[in-house]
Amino acid sequence: MTDLVPGFNVPAAIGMAIEDIYTPALIVDLDAFERNVRTMAEFARKAGVRLRAHAKTHKSADIARAQIAHGGACGICCQKTSEAEALVAAGIKDVLVSNEVTDPKMIDRLARLCAKARVIVCVDDAGNVDDLSAAASRHGVTLECLVEIDVGAGRCGVAPGADAVRLAQKIAAAPNLAFSGLQAYHGSAQHLRTFAERRDAIAKAVAMTRDTVAQLDMAGLQCAIVGGAGTGTYEFEGMSGVYNELQCGSYVFMDADYGRIRDANGAPLSTFANALFILTTVMSHAKPDMAVCDAGLKAQSVDSGLPVVFGRDDVTYTKCSDEHGVIADPHGRLRINDRLKLVPGHCDPTCNVHDWFVGVRNGRVECLWPVTARGRAF
Amino acid sequence: MTDLVPGFNVPAAIGMAIEDIYTPALIVDLDAFERNVRTMAEFARKAGVRLRAHAKTHKSADIARAQIAHGGACGICCQKTSEAEALVAAGIKDVLVSNEVTDPKMIDRLARLCAKARVIVCVDDAGNVDDLSAAASRHGVTLECLVEIDVGAGRCGVAPGADAVRLAQKIAAAPNLAFSGLQAYHGSAQHLRTFAERRDAIAKAVAMTRDTVAQLDMAGLQCAIVGGAGTGTYEFEGMSGVYNELQCGSYVFMDADYGRIRDANGAPLSTFANALFILTTVMSHAKPDMAVCDAGLKAQSVDSGLPVVFGRDDVTYTKCSDEHGVIADPHGRLRINDRLKLVPGHCDPTCNVHDWFVGVRNGRVECLWPVTARGRAF
Repeated sequence: MTDLVPGFNVPAAIGMAIEDIYTPALIVDLDAFERNVRTMAEFARKAGVRLRAHAKTHKSADIARAQIAHGGACGICCQKTSEAEALVAAGIKDVLVSNEVTDPKMIDRLARLCAKARVIVCVDDAGNVDDLSAAASRHGVTLECLVEIDVGAGRCGVAPGADAVRLAQKIAAAPNLAFSGLQAYHGSAQHLRTFAERRDAIAKAVAMTRDTVAQLDMAGLQCAIVGGAGTGTYEFEGMSGVYNELQCGSYVFMDADYGRIRDANGAPLSTFANALFILTTVMSHAKPDMAVCDAGLKAQSVDSGLPVVFGRDDVTYTKCSDEHGVIADPHGRLRINDRLKLVPGHCDPTCNVHDWFVGVRNGRVECLWPVTARGRAF
Repeated sequence: MTDLVPGFNVPAAIGMAIEDIYTPALIVDLDAFERNVRTMAEFARKAGVRLRAHAKTHKSADIARAQIAHGGACGICCQKTSEAEALVAAGIKDVLVSNEVTDPKMIDRLARLCAKARVIVCVDDAGNVDDLSAAASRHGVTLECLVEIDVGAGRCGVAPGADAVRLAQKIAAAPNLAFSGLQAYHGSAQHLRTFAERRDAIAKAVAMTRDTVAQLDMAGLQCAIVGGAGTGTYEFEGMSGVYNELQCGSYVFMDADYGRIRDANGAPLSTFANALFILTTVMSHAKPDMAVCDAGLKAQSVDSGLPVVFGRDDVTYTKCSDEHGVIADPHGRLRINDRLKLVPGHCDPTCNVHDWFVGVRNGRVECLWPVTARGRAF
């Protein structure tokens, strides 16, 4: 690693007071983060399912290692071959690419990666099975495959049932491929606002998945892995008796959009705490009731809404442009160089615009974690 | 620079066919890009104003150098001190930070940078003047300052007129600072949809700016720079007789949101061509009328709307999640591994999630330009 120069290629130095961190910066409340990691581990243990934590949220080898060492995770998920490469290079030994890999160049690399770690990939196309098999044969490895079924997300995945069985049979018969089970993630259910909506969506997903597992069984194919679930729905999949691997990611950090979903009592979810913040500085206050902070679109993604100012109800983030956030300050409380902590609207793509997580505890910087796979999009 | 490994830390190799570029990747149509650069140079020359091209769009030293060498630019703008540092380190000699710098650590660095290049900064606060002056004095440099006035954008900037004059006088009297003029950028006017809306918004901005210039003149303060304008409105500021520096950035690339604004005849702007695309690959097509491509939220910013599929009216990008784009394909035309070119919704924050621009011409990769100041947010 090259020299780290705070404020140039890294936002802080270890031991620095929080007040001295360069902004905008992504900070992790280590106490909250560690509680979140333990809480999910505990749930998975009690439910008797494996946790395969999703590294797409954070893209960090340090966090992935913490999830495995202290968070009960059997391995990790990621979404891209280049992410898997970066995480395997950093010591992760069990990786599911919870996505299709179809580009011949990346298939070749995925097969090469099998020599270094357990690698599993999702499949939803018969032609892709041939390509994966050819690459795995070329490199003399066995590549594990999950058949992705669409259980309601409306994105990738074949239909549950007969289509899935046909594809699984093709995988099972293909040289150097192993059929390892089903990918049955219901992405669009995660952020449904009410408990009942999420419960009902996952009940349908569970029914489709159970039926597909049964059909596979009748065809002589066992599912070592039945994977899915996210932070919004993991309790339903976890208690379903059908899923055996949970793929939650956001639980380590949470975000403003997860803050809008409700539990069975109509209250905000309290299981996990906000652990990820954009630290920002007020850099203009030329109008009495409006401040401008230094965290705009290049410090976050606003696809799921604007960030929320943490711990204050007197000021509101109201508008986001490239390098600026407009803060309504009706009582004129803010001053130039005041700091605010923003809960990002959506944690995953927000992490992807930063190079570092700044871990903080008791007012000080305790660690700096690189966003290992930032920009690894291939 | 460390070794470049296509598909790992860089999406292509020079000489590669476009079909072989790793995706998602940011590609630049070099013919369109060069035409855009020349067209803006020609406008500024004819209008008799300087062009200070905005590097916030691209954050690339290569593009900044092209804008100066071939595009008539007298220098560049950027938004952050760390961007300015990165661009000065790459050889740019004349930089306006078109934004306020208030953090004491960054003020110190801004002052240091004055030893290496002409550096100008914007100011909208009296206390900030004292801090800038102290830093410039400490380093024995003269720091040029523009008073930022709010001409309608509703973000940073003091009120035009008396407030601006007071701040200018304070700058002029401060040790080691030079008052160099006004920053009068109307950001929110750039994307107003109709010609008349943009014309009227800038007419008001011009009137406020003209009045402020006159009041400053009566106070004995001359504006060497009266800067502002963007790609949506530059003709109005350029012909105003008041502004003398245009700060356009998006014109080099254009984007889908600029594609929605209309000219005087109600037609899309035709002055500049789309030169920036997200090259993406279809990686799933499990449903007859829907494909999924590999460019999602981590390959772009959707703050100004979804990307538009370039050159095709038979398929539409309809939904964006972290690593996926859903493509409506009602006629089932797409196949797995087909490539599409997406015009990003908003070019600036899209460039900020990529590490490289892949310059293409005649079907081949001609150059690779690093996004020099990517992630430089301080």
